[in-house]
Amino acid sequence: MRILGIDPGLVATGYGMIAATGDRMECLAAGVIRPDSPALDRRLLQIHEELTALLHEFIPDAVALEDLFTVYKHPKTAVLMGHARGVICLAAAQRAVPVINIAPTEVKRAVTGHGRASKEQVQRMVQGLLRLPSLPTPDHVSDALALAICHATRERSPAAMYRR
Amino acid sequence: MRILGIDPGLVATGYGMIAATGDRMECLAAGVIRPDSPALDRRLLQIHEELTALLHEFIPDAVALEDLFTVYKHPKTAVLMGHARGVICLAAAQRAVPVINIAPTEVKRAVTGHGRASKEQVQRMVQGLLRLPSLPTPDHVSDALALAICHATRERSPAAMYRR
Repeated sequence: MRILGIDPGLVATGYGMIAATGDRMECLAAGVIRPDSPALDRRLLQIHEELTALLHEFIPDAVALEDLFTVYKHPKTAVLMGHARGVICLAAAQRAVPVINIAPTEVKRAVTGHGRASKEQVQRMVQGLLRLPSLPTPDHVSDALALAICHATRERSPAAMYRR
Repeated sequence: MRILGIDPGLVATGYGMIAATGDRMECLAAGVIRPDSPALDRRLLQIHEELTALLHEFIPDAVALEDLFTVYKHPKTAVLMGHARGVICLAAAQRAVPVINIAPTEVKRAVTGHGRASKEQVQRMVQGLLRLPSLPTPDHVSDALALAICHATRERSPAAMYRR
């Protein structure tokens, strides 16, 4: 199965597309969408367009995102991130790709074995699991890949449980 | 000019399309988009589709929304509303319609003459200004129409100033 992990943001949206076959996982594409325009609506347009192109090219079976309420501590950040997350969910829905929500601690546990791992530990484990030639950077990319890996790992387990 | 006022929400998104010519304003369409599905991504899809159809049918010169940060006091509400607002801004950007952000107090002042008017005062003034046969309800619709009226009123004034 193919999974697209996404770390949403108006300044930088990280993405990581992986293919998982049995125990084997490989990275098909990873990168960061960085909208050029200072205008909110133009930023959303660019995120939506680039993501739609990725969904069209790789046809993933699922999009993995961090849980709605875990990341956003402040109303201002929350409302801005919500805008980016909204157009990402829309792009997935427009291509009938299910959106999977995963708690950050679950992601860290799936990738590193414990829920309080540092960013660096996540990066190193993502590099190892996907056999990448170098550390996946920036954080947006390693976080997106970790989300995809987490979903792939849980899908293999008979106890897989998610909130969609 | 034609202005589409929108009051975003995942459960109910109110809209009001007005045409303003000189001092005269009329309501072309108003209503509420109520997504059927409980799933967030399907709700966003329906809001985006219905709004895109409205933009296509009426070709407004501007979309008027409440300011980003004024409405949302709690991170949970903020992130959810942000999703709806995100797909609304996207729909406008996809048709190159500028999005105008207006503070709630400005809207109330433009419609009723003071910034602390009640919902009922806003409804009655909206009804009068647009010569509607009955009170515009629910609040989502009167709020959306009030946003459109506010933008029309300010566009007539030489001192019109907005943040886009």
